[in-house]
Amino acid sequence: MRATASPPASPPSSSRASSRKAGFRYTALASEISERIRSGDLRPGDRLPSVRRASRLRGLSPNTVLEAYHLLEDRGEIRARPRSGYFIAGAARRAAVPEPEPIEAAFEIPPVAARAPARLTAAELALRALAAFRLPGHVHFSGSSPHGDLFPLGRLARSLKGSLHRLDLSTLPTRLPEGNGELRRFLVRRALEWGFAGSASELVITAGTLEGMNLCLDAVTRPGDLIAVEAAASYAQRTSLERRGLRSLELPTDLATGVSLGALERALRKHSVRACLLMPNFQNPLGFVMPEAAKRELVALLARHDVPLIENDVYGELHFGGARPVPAKAFDRKGLVLHCASFSKCLAPGYSVGWVLAGRFAGRVQLAKWTTNAANGVITQAALVEYLRHGGYEHHLRRLRRTLAALHDRALATIERHFPRDTRIRPVSGGFTLWLELPEDVEASKVYALALRERITVAPGPLFSASRRHRSALRLNFAQDLTPRRDAALATLGRIAASLA
Amino acid sequence: MRATASPPASPPSSSRASSRKAGFRYTALASEISERIRSGDLRPGDRLPSVRRASRLRGLSPNTVLEAYHLLEDRGEIRARPRSGYFIAGAARRAAVPEPEPIEAAFEIPPVAARAPARLTAAELALRALAAFRLPGHVHFSGSSPHGDLFPLGRLARSLKGSLHRLDLSTLPTRLPEGNGELRRFLVRRALEWGFAGSASELVITAGTLEGMNLCLDAVTRPGDLIAVEAAASYAQRTSLERRGLRSLELPTDLATGVSLGALERALRKHSVRACLLMPNFQNPLGFVMPEAAKRELVALLARHDVPLIENDVYGELHFGGARPVPAKAFDRKGLVLHCASFSKCLAPGYSVGWVLAGRFAGRVQLAKWTTNAANGVITQAALVEYLRHGGYEHHLRRLRRTLAALHDRALATIERHFPRDTRIRPVSGGFTLWLELPEDVEASKVYALALRERITVAPGPLFSASRRHRSALRLNFAQDLTPRRDAALATLGRIAASLA
Repeated sequence: MRATASPPASPPSSSRASSRKAGFRYTALASEISERIRSGDLRPGDRLPSVRRASRLRGLSPNTVLEAYHLLEDRGEIRARPRSGYFIAGAARRAAVPEPEPIEAAFEIPPVAARAPARLTAAELALRALAAFRLPGHVHFSGSSPHGDLFPLGRLARSLKGSLHRLDLSTLPTRLPEGNGELRRFLVRRALEWGFAGSASELVITAGTLEGMNLCLDAVTRPGDLIAVEAAASYAQRTSLERRGLRSLELPTDLATGVSLGALERALRKHSVRACLLMPNFQNPLGFVMPEAAKRELVALLARHDVPLIENDVYGELHFGGARPVPAKAFDRKGLVLHCASFSKCLAPGYSVGWVLAGRFAGRVQLAKWTTNAANGVITQAALVEYLRHGGYEHHLRRLRRTLAALHDRALATIERHFPRDTRIRPVSGGFTLWLELPEDVEASKVYALALRERITVAPGPLFSASRRHRSALRLNFAQDLTPRRDAALATLGRIAASLA
Repeated sequence: MRATASPPASPPSSSRASSRKAGFRYTALASEISERIRSGDLRPGDRLPSVRRASRLRGLSPNTVLEAYHLLEDRGEIRARPRSGYFIAGAARRAAVPEPEPIEAAFEIPPVAARAPARLTAAELALRALAAFRLPGHVHFSGSSPHGDLFPLGRLARSLKGSLHRLDLSTLPTRLPEGNGELRRFLVRRALEWGFAGSASELVITAGTLEGMNLCLDAVTRPGDLIAVEAAASYAQRTSLERRGLRSLELPTDLATGVSLGALERALRKHSVRACLLMPNFQNPLGFVMPEAAKRELVALLARHDVPLIENDVYGELHFGGARPVPAKAFDRKGLVLHCASFSKCLAPGYSVGWVLAGRFAGRVQLAKWTTNAANGVITQAALVEYLRHGGYEHHLRRLRRTLAALHDRALATIERHFPRDTRIRPVSGGFTLWLELPEDVEASKVYALALRERITVAPGPLFSASRRHRSALRLNFAQDLTPRRDAALATLGRIAASLA
C-alpha cells in the first residue's frame, strides 16, 4: 500500500472528473456530491449513505468512498458525527437564527454537530468556542495568539532545516525528557537576567505552557484540593483545574493590580489552600501587571504559609510599555514558585516548546512530564537552538513589541469611536488582548452570537470564569486579524454592542 | 543578549584557555576544574562552590561560572543536585561496590544523585533505570526501542525539510489538536486493512502511545478504579496507572497466549473492573501474541460487561514471523476498544506522533488531548505525511522486520550457549525483546547490578510488575546494540547469571 497523493486544491468539474482514471474516482464522487449540494438536491442535515452502503450502491471500493467523504469533510461540505455517519454541513448556519440564547446555546456554533443542550463542561465550552475562533473567512478578534505573520516562521523553518545537520539522529530513540542541553542553558541565562536566583536543575522542558501548568498541578495537588485563582482566567487554565477535580477559589481581582493580597491572606488562614495559580504579567484575559511590590509581598505571604505558587508568565516577553515586568519567581527564595512559560506566544507557535522553573518541585514535575508522554520535542527544540544561536531573537522581539503597540493603539481608538459610551476599557502595556466591560445590560453571549452572523468572532467574558461571571465583558484579541477589514469589523462589533445596550 | 556558540568538542588545555579572550573564560574555568579532578585534588562527592561564591572568588561573572559548570555537567564530570549545588561526579561508581542489594538499591545507579533509600514509586524506579539504560560506553540490552540506525532517520529528516515548503506556516498558531488531515486519512486507510470497522471520526492524534494510553485512562477512569492488566507490563503503563491512583488487577497470564479469559470473566463478575488495559500483540515484556480467537472472545466478553479495553498495539507492525497479527480492535462492534499505537517503534522515534482509535470515547479522548497540552506536533506530522506520500514505508518495514528476525535468532543462539541450562526462553515472532526466566534462585536485580559493573545493561523483571514479581526474569532488548561486542556482552551476561545460580 502507498500513501495517496494529496487531493487537488480545487476539484475538477464533475464531468471531467468522471472521465479520469481510477486513481481519481474519489474526486469524481466528491464532485458529484458537491454538485448535488449546490443544486439543493442534498440539503443541510441530510445524511449520506454509510461507506459500506455507498460502496455497494456505486460499485466503488470502501476506500474510494471514504476518500471522497474525507475530501468533502476537509472542504467543510459534509461533517462526520461520531458513530452516526456523514451529514451535509451547514444546517445551523442557514437556519433562521432566533433571538440569541444563553451562553451555552451561543456556543452551539454552526460547524459543530448539534448536541443535546446539556450543561457543558469548561473544556467542552472552550473547545466549541475554539472551533468558531478559526472559521475561515471570518474576522477574528478571538483566539489566544497573535497572527502567524507576526512570527519569524520562515526563518525558524530554515533553522529547523539547518539543525538537522547537527542533530545526532541515531540518538532519537533514547532521548529522555530533560530536553536539549543548549536550550536549557539559554533558558537559564535568560531567567538570570530577570532575577532568577535558583539552580539550573530547577528547569523542566515541556511541550508548552498549558502542559507545564498541568505538570505543576500534578506535582503539587490532589483531586478535591482548593486552588486560589484570579477572578478571570484563561479557559485553558480553567479546564486544567476542572479536569483534575480541583476546586477554584476565585480571589477578588483588581483590573489594574491583580488579586487582593488581603483576600488571599484571609483565604490562606481560613481554608486549606493547596496552591495558588496566577498570571501576574499581562494577565489573560484582564491584562493587568501586578506591581513589583505586590509580587514580592505575594511570594512572601505564600512562603509564610508554605503554599506553592504556579505562575503563568507566557506573555512576559510581550511588553511594549517599558521594561520586561519581573515575574514573581524572581522573589522566590524557598523554591515555592513554579514559573511556567513557552515560546508559543512570543517566537515559535506550533513548535510546542515550553518550560517550567519548578523550584523544589522540579523532580516531581520532571517525573510528571515523563509519565505524561515521555516526549521531548527533540527536533523542534534543536530548531529553536539553531535560531537562538544565530541571534535575531531580540530583534524579532523588538519588532513584535512595536507592532503589538501600534495594533493596540489603533484598536483602542476604534473602540472609543464605535462602542457604547459607557464601555469600560483599560489600555495594556503588553500582550495582545483588551478586556472590554460593556454596559451592564449587554449580554456578551448575545454580542458573540450576533457578531458570528456578521462573520466576526470575539471571546465572551463568561468563558473566563468558573462561576460564569463577566456576563457583559469581552476579550478582544487585537493582533489576530491583520487585514484592512479589521477596523470596519471592530466598528460593526461596537454597533452590535450599542444595539443591545 | 545572544545565544552563545556551542562549546568546543574537546576543551583546550588549561594554559591555552587562560590566554583566550573573554568569551572563552568559561572553558578555561572548566578545564581548570577538570585538571583538578584528574589530579585527585577534587574528589568524587566534593562540592563545588556556589555560582555566586565562585563568581566572587574568581572575579568572573555568574554567567561565566554557570557556563563552566554546565559544560562540566554535560561531560559528566560534575553533577547538579536540586537545591544543594554542584558535586564532583563518580562517587558511587568508584566506591567499592558491596554485595548487590535488593531491587531498589540496585536502581541506585551511579550517575543519579544519592537519595534517601525510601520506597520508590514505579515511576521513580523506571526513571532511574532509564538513566542507566543510556549510559555511554555501555552495551545495552535494555531500553524500549530498537537502535536508531534501524530507522530511516536521514530520509525522514529530508522529508521534514521537504514538508516545510508545503506547510502553511502562518496557520501554526491556530492549529487545533485534531492533527494533520492527510495523516488522519493514511492512518484510517491502514487500519481498514487490518479490519478496523469503525468510523474515521474515532481517530485522535497523540504525541505517542504513552500519551495515548494516558488520554484513554483519563477518558474512561477515575482515581481508585480497578483496571485489569497482564501479569507483567511495560513500566510506562505501570506509571500511568500509579499516577492516576488506579488499582491494578494482575490477571494470570500465559507466556504463549496472554491473559486467562476465564480469570478475566471471574474478575468481571466479582469486582467492579472499570477497564482492561492489555497488549495482545508482541506483549511487552512477555512477547506473546494472543491467538485471534482469544482476541475475539476477549472483545465479546468485555462487550457483555460493557467494559472498555485499552489496547496497546505499538509493536503491531514489527512482526517477523508471518502476517501482521490482527488487533483486538478489529473485533470491536460496540466502540468499546481504544486502540493505541504510534510511529515511535516502527518508523520515526523522536517524532512523537501516535494515535488512538477511541471508539465511542473519541470525544472524551480528544478533549483530554486538548486539555493535556493542546499541542499537536504539526511540524513532525507534516514530515511523516511527506515521507508516507513518497512511499518507502513498506520497504522500510520489510527491511526492519528482516533485521529484527536476524538479531532475534542470533541472540537466541548466544543465550542458549551461555546462559544457565535451565533458563527458560521462548522465541518471539515480532517486537525486539526476549523474556528470560532464569533459574529461580537467581535474583534479576543482582544480575542487573553485576552487569552494570561490566558496563552492560538489561531490564530486570521486577520493573514490570506492580507486585514486584518476576524476581528471576530479565527482559532483553536484542535490537539495541548493533556492534560486534554484542555477542561477547551477551555471553558475559550469561556467565553472570550462571555465577548466581
